[in-house]
Amino acid sequence: MHKIIPVAAFDAVVFGATGDLTMRKLLPALYQRFRDRQIPGESRIIAAARTHLGTAEYRDLAAEALERHVPAADRDPATVASFLDHLRYVAVDGAGDDGWDDLASLLAERPDHVRPYYLATSPSLYGSICRNLSAHGLIGERSRVVLEKPIGHDLASARAINDQVGKVFPESQIFRIDHYLGKETVQNLLALRFANTIFERLWNADVIDHVQITVAETVGVEGRGGYYDTSGALRDMLQNHMLQLLCLLGMESPLSLDADAVRDEKLKVLRALKPIPAHEVPMRTVRGQYVAGAVNGQPVASYAADLGGEGQSLTETFVALRLELMTPRWAGVPFYLRTGKRLPQKVSEIVVQFRSSPFSIFSDEFAREPNRLVIRLQPQEGIKLEVMTKEPGPGGMRLRATGLDISFEETFNQRYPDAYERLLMDVVRGNTTLFMRRDEVEAAWAWADTLLNAWADRPEPPRPYPAGTWGPTAAIALIERDGRTWYEDLG
Amino acid sequence: MHKIIPVAAFDAVVFGATGDLTMRKLLPALYQRFRDRQIPGESRIIAAARTHLGTAEYRDLAAEALERHVPAADRDPATVASFLDHLRYVAVDGAGDDGWDDLASLLAERPDHVRPYYLATSPSLYGSICRNLSAHGLIGERSRVVLEKPIGHDLASARAINDQVGKVFPESQIFRIDHYLGKETVQNLLALRFANTIFERLWNADVIDHVQITVAETVGVEGRGGYYDTSGALRDMLQNHMLQLLCLLGMESPLSLDADAVRDEKLKVLRALKPIPAHEVPMRTVRGQYVAGAVNGQPVASYAADLGGEGQSLTETFVALRLELMTPRWAGVPFYLRTGKRLPQKVSEIVVQFRSSPFSIFSDEFAREPNRLVIRLQPQEGIKLEVMTKEPGPGGMRLRATGLDISFEETFNQRYPDAYERLLMDVVRGNTTLFMRRDEVEAAWAWADTLLNAWADRPEPPRPYPAGTWGPTAAIALIERDGRTWYEDLG
Repeated sequence: MHKIIPVAAFDAVVFGATGDLTMRKLLPALYQRFRDRQIPGESRIIAAARTHLGTAEYRDLAAEALERHVPAADRDPATVASFLDHLRYVAVDGAGDDGWDDLASLLAERPDHVRPYYLATSPSLYGSICRNLSAHGLIGERSRVVLEKPIGHDLASARAINDQVGKVFPESQIFRIDHYLGKETVQNLLALRFANTIFERLWNADVIDHVQITVAETVGVEGRGGYYDTSGALRDMLQNHMLQLLCLLGMESPLSLDADAVRDEKLKVLRALKPIPAHEVPMRTVRGQYVAGAVNGQPVASYAADLGGEGQSLTETFVALRLELMTPRWAGVPFYLRTGKRLPQKVSEIVVQFRSSPFSIFSDEFAREPNRLVIRLQPQEGIKLEVMTKEPGPGGMRLRATGLDISFEETFNQRYPDAYERLLMDVVRGNTTLFMRRDEVEAAWAWADTLLNAWADRPEPPRPYPAGTWGPTAAIALIERDGRTWYEDLG
Repeated sequence: MHKIIPVAAFDAVVFGATGDLTMRKLLPALYQRFRDRQIPGESRIIAAARTHLGTAEYRDLAAEALERHVPAADRDPATVASFLDHLRYVAVDGAGDDGWDDLASLLAERPDHVRPYYLATSPSLYGSICRNLSAHGLIGERSRVVLEKPIGHDLASARAINDQVGKVFPESQIFRIDHYLGKETVQNLLALRFANTIFERLWNADVIDHVQITVAETVGVEGRGGYYDTSGALRDMLQNHMLQLLCLLGMESPLSLDADAVRDEKLKVLRALKPIPAHEVPMRTVRGQYVAGAVNGQPVASYAADLGGEGQSLTETFVALRLELMTPRWAGVPFYLRTGKRLPQKVSEIVVQFRSSPFSIFSDEFAREPNRLVIRLQPQEGIKLEVMTKEPGPGGMRLRATGLDISFEETFNQRYPDAYERLLMDVVRGNTTLFMRRDEVEAAWAWADTLLNAWADRPEPPRPYPAGTWGPTAAIALIERDGRTWYEDLG
């Protein structure tokens, strides 16, 4: 284990500090980095929200959040107390004028600190918060702004947000977060691809048969159906997280690990996405919506019922696509993507399936089983290479698929840090490599728009699927039609 | 775990039944197969040697051998007693006429049994034993003969032995044993190479930089120096075991797993060995002989002293070579082989080192570390793929070499059978795949003869190396001269 190098002292301002994301993810992540002494003692976390609270009250809320979201083994009272000491609360109205002077005078105490502004608010506030920051002279060379998704709901709205933020922050200070990029296994994918000759040699259409990306949730939309119904699975999951994974899988080697070198290559992948012509949309895309069913043996309601049961919604809670990349490396290799709510299992994984040999000298039933690289992001991060080996024993040459774990917590005997921990430290360091550049976000929306428009032009209700199943049968047909099968880990 | 399928009932005749190999390897292997119910109850093991013993006395010897050479956990008294019941002893003079009638009448009791004749004797007896078997009408369709090494000490003597045996047994009934071929990891190498597209793609001069094969012993020649001094490291280890490993590594895919299909391909490897011209012999081969030193902290004597200290011996106890295969797959890839006695560590392993990338985007110190496949036969069998992965943690992209175990006992939760167990069952089944065909043995000798002759033409004493070191420094130079390094497992 390498030594942890502390970042520079900072004053992080978290807008939306009483919200769910702050409590569930940001405070626990900052606590873990503090606990590992990566955060210098003079740093401050300045919580900002509209509610009128004192710092003491906010610390109580924060203490509660840590208790709920940090494993007990990682919480000792002295460290927690010391962490809470670094919290300040300021009541600030992101949309209005209140509280900005208080924030400004608090920040003025530490003019040399790095200043990450974390916008954990509704995107509708991004513009006014940025304007206020600028108007109060709070933006300098050491400032950064962190934007959470969704950045728009189509290309036009994404551009509008980017324009508003871009008016006051240069691109190099804008950190558009996609927490999938902070996951250990996603970064390990880069190491595997670009630090191992053997994988480099295997990473192309000659050797790879196809790629699958699955992001499956068991939850429905209880509680946030209102927002979700304006979005749907394509916008909520596929257009951002899943396309980002596709970029890392599909990109050419960057010239270096510099942020722009990496993002230039990712952008090229987005631009290489083969457009789906309108008449092929019904064959190559599947939209679904869950109806009543059962997840983990518990009966659950339909999407319509989760929304309140009034009228019919055309929003998809499931989407499956067959994509292609128009590059010399990938031409002809299908990428199958699927994501949905109320599926049987919570799992995010990428399966790179290598071609099976057209010929085998082994008579064994497993002889033609293809090799696979399985990259799992959830529930447990890990990378596994599936190879065929001989089953030990004097019985002759019998084969068996063996999964080689390429990364697991035991290897390194330490916990995997949460994605936010890594990403927040990168913000302080000013390293934008794992954040989305404006042109990436907009290229992803440009692609998504063609699909959204094609669907809008021929409005059809999404296909129903019972909650607790792997989506509409059409999603199975989408891949089986090509003689392939969605991966199921039977190991 | 697949079901163990019993072999046909057999009467195995072991010549040399009181010898070391029988006691240490054959009886324990047969016991284990019996214990796993792979050997049918009506089978018999007929122990034959010159000594006059009764069956009861021999069973006592066998019981002692099992006690010494079978792990206690595998020995329960009932199974041991039942196994011993299957032993018979007959006093037979391999070189003369005595006892053959007794053996013949014992075998006549079970005319339908498969009859493996295991020649665990000096090769000088092979001819007369075969003649006697034939003269007493003991050879039929269900007979097989098993020959132990050494089969000759050069091409001419190997041919003489093969002629004598071949006069009475057809080639399909001759089983020339090389126990390295019965090892699980060696067979797993075939599975890896020919049942995995990804390895198939990596197995050539484009991707592989070089191959190392090391067979290191810590023992000297105490007790058997007389025999060893007529042989040396090249004949004793390299010409047979190590060239066999080279064959499995280097062969093209056979058309099937049929014995002759596999052996045809191995033979082609032996024939593809690039001859070492006499003037290059001093640069490409290193002969060594140990002098007094220390192994595992214990002082040990020189080879000359182990021989009795009289006069000087020119026999090598260490040999290192740089070989090349003249095939499209391998041209330009060096194979470095080394073997010796009194080395620091008992280890037999093959290292396939892939090319390192000429360029890396990672600044990490490990960034250009090449990938390796390490196949270890001793002391603990296993296959490991070394890849670079990201070290988990929020500290940035730091790489670390991680070894993926491709086969280890825990995966399958069972013991690895000893090589002899597998091979003995193959003899009963009549499967010659893992045994050396006559033309293979002779091709290996033909190659070894050129080297032996070159050495004989310019007789030089072997280079001295202190016991407990990795051979003469010239062996280090042999590989370093090419900008490469002998592999050391630091993990």
